[in-house]
Amino acid sequence: MIRLYTWSTPNGRKVSIALEELGLPYSVHPVNIGKDEQFSPEFLAIDPNNKIPAIVDDAAPGGPLSIFESGAILTYLAEKTGKLLAPSGPERYAALQWLHWQMGGLGPMLGQLGFFAVRSPEKAPLAIERFTTESGRLLGVMEARLRAAPYLGGEDYSIADIACYAWTLAATTFLEEALGDKLDGKEAIHAWLDKVGARPGVQRGMAVPKS
Amino acid sequence: MIRLYTWSTPNGRKVSIALEELGLPYSVHPVNIGKDEQFSPEFLAIDPNNKIPAIVDDAAPGGPLSIFESGAILTYLAEKTGKLLAPSGPERYAALQWLHWQMGGLGPMLGQLGFFAVRSPEKAPLAIERFTTESGRLLGVMEARLRAAPYLGGEDYSIADIACYAWTLAATTFLEEALGDKLDGKEAIHAWLDKVGARPGVQRGMAVPKS
Repeated sequence: MIRLYTWSTPNGRKVSIALEELGLPYSVHPVNIGKDEQFSPEFLAIDPNNKIPAIVDDAAPGGPLSIFESGAILTYLAEKTGKLLAPSGPERYAALQWLHWQMGGLGPMLGQLGFFAVRSPEKAPLAIERFTTESGRLLGVMEARLRAAPYLGGEDYSIADIACYAWTLAATTFLEEALGDKLDGKEAIHAWLDKVGARPGVQRGMAVPKS
Repeated sequence: MIRLYTWSTPNGRKVSIALEELGLPYSVHPVNIGKDEQFSPEFLAIDPNNKIPAIVDDAAPGGPLSIFESGAILTYLAEKTGKLLAPSGPERYAALQWLHWQMGGLGPMLGQLGFFAVRSPEKAPLAIERFTTESGRLLGVMEARLRAAPYLGGEDYSIADIACYAWTLAATTFLEEALGDKLDGKEAIHAWLDKVGARPGVQRGMAVPKS
């Protein structure tokens, strides 16, 4: 059994989606970041970086294995099952490059946009402009990719799509007003969101943890 | 032969260090981001995300393979050679989790701190405070890890150390003034920087591209 420590955020949903898509049994351990539960000694023992998501695989060979960072968890789950990531070849590294692109680009930039443009009561126009522009650039790169291939990694749905899904959905909902015209004409992104969002595993994963 | 498209930045140096450590033959193709060369058609054909580094492995099975995103490139080079990343087991995922921690946390947060606190002529105090605080938190997490283990992935030097080295060095030099007391008492980080920085491959990689 895999223990999933998570909350209702795009990073948390990446892992619940992957677990649902892979059909792996897991238990859900909500970590309410609104109540600072990510700083509890129990959680810090698993994840000293105090950010959800994290997992513990109690059935890992050699004993319980803790992993934090959603990109590493997705890679672990894919390699554990041999699914959602090619074991070698160009498809593998195409998926990993888009996974890292999400981890280092789309996620942090949309996350900062959310802070500066939506959540912070104090406004810093320089920061709002910077993260709006960079988010728009990244969405443009993603749009071009999805016009050239059905999925981010190429022909096949992979952990790269799972990593990007919940963040891109946030861009079109929570961050829609902040992004303004940056979403205009992104037809391939919208079609991809519909296609990925129609998957039963994605729908089940997006409902974790239960609110 | 591997073609490396790079510039004198922490992200670029990750890949030149890895190529040197692994003893892989490569050619250097400087992409001067001060002159916007990352937007040239030649570079965009390899890396539509217009960010260095990128590689093309002309000797990949099946034909030339282009990869962008430093974290994906490091994983590719480690898997191509069977070095600097365990093929399976807890050590593999410990290294991958710290690699993703660098890609999604340390790199983006120090990078934003560099923009807001050092490079931008206009000052946004809210942003400077946010990225100083978050960088300090991340350096604290790294310090605790390096007090518990000789390397980020555990007992062995890995691509996680390579990913973090040039950024952490930037924290102690380019960003030292901005970070203020956030570097105080980080003895394990300083010892690790000395240890990693003494490696001949790291020294050779840090000198690429020649200035």
